[in-house]
Amino acid sequence: MATHRFTPAQFHSTLGAHAPVLRVQDGDSVITTTVDAHGFDHDNAKCGGDTNPMTGPFFIEGAEPGDVLCVHIKRIRMNRVMGWTRQGLAWNVVDPARVREMPARERITWRIDDNAGCARPETSTPALALWSVPLKPMLGCFGVAPAGGEFISTATSGPHGGNMDYNRFGEGATVYFPVAVEGALFFLGDAHAAQGDGEIAGTGIETSSETEFSIRLIKGRRMGWPRGEDDDCIFTVGNARPIEQALQHATSEMLDWLEQDFGLDPVSASHLLGMHVRYDIANVFNPAFSVACRLEKQVLAGFARRA
Amino acid sequence: MATHRFTPAQFHSTLGAHAPVLRVQDGDSVITTTVDAHGFDHDNAKCGGDTNPMTGPFFIEGAEPGDVLCVHIKRIRMNRVMGWTRQGLAWNVVDPARVREMPARERITWRIDDNAGCARPETSTPALALWSVPLKPMLGCFGVAPAGGEFISTATSGPHGGNMDYNRFGEGATVYFPVAVEGALFFLGDAHAAQGDGEIAGTGIETSSETEFSIRLIKGRRMGWPRGEDDDCIFTVGNARPIEQALQHATSEMLDWLEQDFGLDPVSASHLLGMHVRYDIANVFNPAFSVACRLEKQVLAGFARRA
Amino acid sequence: MATHRFTPAQFHSTLGAHAPVLRVQDGDSVITTTVDAHGFDHDNAKCGGDTNPMTGPFFIEGAEPGDVLCVHIKRIRMNRVMGWTRQGLAWNVVDPARVREMPARERITWRIDDNAGCARPETSTPALALWSVPLKPMLGCFGVAPAGGEFISTATSGPHGGNMDYNRFGEGATVYFPVAVEGALFFLGDAHAAQGDGEIAGTGIETSSETEFSIRLIKGRRMGWPRGEDDDCIFTVGNARPIEQALQHATSEMLDWLEQDFGLDPVSASHLLGMHVRYDIANVFNPAFSVACRLEKQVLAGFARRA
Amino acid sequence: MATHRFTPAQFHSTLGAHAPVLRVQDGDSVITTTVDAHGFDHDNAKCGGDTNPMTGPFFIEGAEPGDVLCVHIKRIRMNRVMGWTRQGLAWNVVDPARVREMPARERITWRIDDNAGCARPETSTPALALWSVPLKPMLGCFGVAPAGGEFISTATSGPHGGNMDYNRFGEGATVYFPVAVEGALFFLGDAHAAQGDGEIAGTGIETSSETEFSIRLIKGRRMGWPRGEDDDCIFTVGNARPIEQALQHATSEMLDWLEQDFGLDPVSASHLLGMHVRYDIANVFNPAFSVACRLEKQVLAGFARRA
Repeated sequence: MATHRFTPAQFHSTLGAHAPVLRVQDGDSVITTTVDAHGFDHDNAKCGGDTNPMTGPFFIEGAEPGDVLCVHIKRIRMNRVMGWTRQGLAWNVVDPARVREMPARERITWRIDDNAGCARPETSTPALALWSVPLKPMLGCFGVAPAGGEFISTATSGPHGGNMDYNRFGEGATVYFPVAVEGALFFLGDAHAAQGDGEIAGTGIETSSETEFSIRLIKGRRMGWPRGEDDDCIFTVGNARPIEQALQHATSEMLDWLEQDFGLDPVSASHLLGMHVRYDIANVFNPAFSVACRLEKQVLAGFARRA
Repeated sequence: MATHRFTPAQFHSTLGAHAPVLRVQDGDSVITTTVDAHGFDHDNAKCGGDTNPMTGPFFIEGAEPGDVLCVHIKRIRMNRVMGWTRQGLAWNVVDPARVREMPARERITWRIDDNAGCARPETSTPALALWSVPLKPMLGCFGVAPAGGEFISTATSGPHGGNMDYNRFGEGATVYFPVAVEGALFFLGDAHAAQGDGEIAGTGIETSSETEFSIRLIKGRRMGWPRGEDDDCIFTVGNARPIEQALQHATSEMLDWLEQDFGLDPVSASHLLGMHVRYDIANVFNPAFSVACRLEKQVLAGFARRA
Repeated sequence: MATHRFTPAQFHSTLGAHAPVLRVQDGDSVITTTVDAHGFDHDNAKCGGDTNPMTGPFFIEGAEPGDVLCVHIKRIRMNRVMGWTRQGLAWNVVDPARVREMPARERITWRIDDNAGCARPETSTPALALWSVPLKPMLGCFGVAPAGGEFISTATSGPHGGNMDYNRFGEGATVYFPVAVEGALFFLGDAHAAQGDGEIAGTGIETSSETEFSIRLIKGRRMGWPRGEDDDCIFTVGNARPIEQALQHATSEMLDWLEQDFGLDPVSASHLLGMHVRYDIANVFNPAFSVACRLEKQVLAGFARRA
Repeated sequence: MATHRFTPAQFHSTLGAHAPVLRVQDGDSVITTTVDAHGFDHDNAKCGGDTNPMTGPFFIEGAEPGDVLCVHIKRIRMNRVMGWTRQGLAWNVVDPARVREMPARERITWRIDDNAGCARPETSTPALALWSVPLKPMLGCFGVAPAGGEFISTATSGPHGGNMDYNRFGEGATVYFPVAVEGALFFLGDAHAAQGDGEIAGTGIETSSETEFSIRLIKGRRMGWPRGEDDDCIFTVGNARPIEQALQHATSEMLDWLEQDFGLDPVSASHLLGMHVRYDIANVFNPAFSVACRLEKQVLAGFARRA
């Protein structure tokens, strides 16, 4: 149950079977740093590529294909005061006839005030002079090496995780990934100080971070898509285009979870979802969109959960 | 500011320029009843068609194309103890490869206990023996006569509203529809005792209701898609397939609303949505899907709102 | 087997149970005229609405729900020399990031030369000075009254036909519609002098026409979606968004057709389609898109066809 | 202008920067063999993986990022008599409500008769006893190493090509790929003896092949998506989900091509496409769908083409 401190020296723009930077045991924690989505660190020095450069990969001893890697996000701290966003919405989230009237998608600098717990855009319109956004730090892109020898860009996502940009992947969340290669090879980066649903501006408040996470290995449990939970909810995440397919993946994965771990038969699981399901559109900007299928834990209180 | 009591004798399966059943003034309230999605009333007597038969239309004196009809849902009471659902999920919300393994979509009877504030399926699996669903009544299908002389099936939805199946259309919600014909011609029906996101079982808990609503007319204000609000949030609803298009409609409508009524320029509105937007997948079962673009009112507290 | 000459005096912008303008018998032919998509006739006089105003409806004696109406397009003649298009492509057929660079969608006048068999844009760029388009006249919008009491805008399409904008709906084509109301109520209009796949400019060469068609009634044969054939091919047309759903409708309908009329079992029909199917994207501009599932008749030569 | 004979000893299931198996010069030809989609060779011996194992990569001397690799398919010969298909259609090409009625997707063996120029399923229903399919050999999966250090599964496709399953990628076709890495690194495999549009059975007639291709390098020409041509047509191929996005990519790429190589301004290119475009749904089964935007060469006869 060691706690490792790791300072990254290089960064990857694909998730794949890159050489591990650190080997950790089941139960260990890691404190490390991440650079922003364009590769700038806490000193705003360029040290990574232009597309969500990743810290890692971390090799988890004993992890094999067919296992599940469980990552608990203990802490995400913005380690610089500068963040940035795009000021206009992504073209694909408004009606095509409106695209030509939208504001240019210029880069805007933000000031992150960790003490006050909020962030403010530096250059903005008078209407937003008093506006600030509460900090709710999250990891935009993280996951494991994919199956089949693929190296997949950190611009997109898949069964292995990746650039899901889900605003519930914050402090206190626990995330489950299917292990596809020996050692699992966990990567993380692309921290956001805050972000609405769908990442519809094409960015959260992009910044660098110091992040602490712990690792747990669950041997011999099969999953198709990332799963997660926090104090209030359990959820599954489907990553695909269009939104329907992401929703289908997430819903199918939730049915599997309810049947495998909560002892529900298919009819009961369908009843439960029909009445209680919540869907979050996590990301509608990246090459693959991300949809979460979510249930409140109180709904599941009456059902015994497999350890 | 009269309160009308209206008992329907016939029901419509399209929203269109049907003969009005009652004429009401701006400010009036109406207490009426609705039959369930298959046309059964509080005595479980068949008195309407098989697809969301509607009570109405109510003619609002003075309403003209280019106005906005504002409907406040004061009360929805289930007026019988029997409800029903489908037990399996809709085929289109799971992966195509899983469709053949899904439970048959049989009709299940529920018992609605208004005093206890919950409902229970009568026939179900042992796993759900102790399961009950809190009542959260809502209107699945309501709206006004559409533009262009159309009569549109109550199975689907559009700019005029219709079968949106959004679980925030409950008691206390206020809904805004664009008026397309003289008198607006408001219809309502298809009450659900409760329903998860997306209506993914293809039903809520379908039942009949006694519903009270009040009417307000806003002259000369243009809207493209239904808008709504409750104590906590404002939201817009896009109705279309696929989900992306519904989301585009809802987002574009929200930009319009922020600019028209909250004094935000396009850049500020984009900033605000990028950080604070919430999306709800209201319905992913009907011929047109429904997506809500939602903002918490506290986010808007700093901006003056046009009356 | 009469041939009727009918000159329309009014036009409809919805397909629905409007009062018939003429009653015809099974086997009869009709010679009539259609106005252009904006309601202008052969003298360029405005006499219909702004959205595909229809000639009709024609009441077919003996047609009842559950029958099939068969319409053979014998002749479409452009009855004026002026046509028009939009000069830019529809926003939704290019990448969202390209929309802002696209040419404005101005209206362009064309000169239709029936003797030369081609059409030329009047105002255009030097690059197109020598360009002309061969005439291949077609009906953009035609169909029958829909089921369920709906009146559906001529901007869109559905199981009843409507604004399908399929460039194989030209002279010599035979089209089959499911009859949903007594008399079938056939409408036609929106002639195009020529059009590429998908109607991606948002228009064909829009013009008025003199059109001759004959009617045949097939009693007691069920269909879900429009079917058609010409000398070379049979095809089915699905009308929906997104393209996937239109393709699913068209493919399912073709399976039905092969099983019902060509004696193929589901396995054989699947084999045949897997090796020989052709898909046409008829329309990717209207509210509902249209996709044709098509088979060459020579592929079917070995299979006996039900009369 | 050498002709190389290359016999593959190993195969790749990703397109990426694998070690080259042969270095060829601009202008050279290669005669090589490919194994079938499940890795079986001309002797039906298993020698590759289960998902479209590729022959290659071939390193093209002088190719650099920013160049275009031009591959001319001179000959594809089925080098064994056995092929196979799936007998049922893919679940996603029929209405979700029909999925449960579809035939099981069993593997069917075919006999390929190169002399007779056709193929026949060995086990099939009586209805197809006399049915044979003309041979029209094609490459289902081929392309170059992708950009950004990605290694992408041969199950899917992208700007680099890959598993496009387009039935015009046959003998006589010339295909253009954007070069993303030094040497381009060309791969090929997954030959089909024949296939309908969309690969809706999830397979063509899968078999091994002897294939001859020649290479040409075009220095310093930028492209976004694969382009191709044969005697009759030029076409661009967009690879994405949903079909709309693939169509947007292909249409945008065709606009670029018309502007770059045929001297058309954006307005003229839009006119030309509006009247003459043809769309082919190449593949609607793989993780990314493929749509071709196609123009007949006779349409372009009046425009000078850049060499």
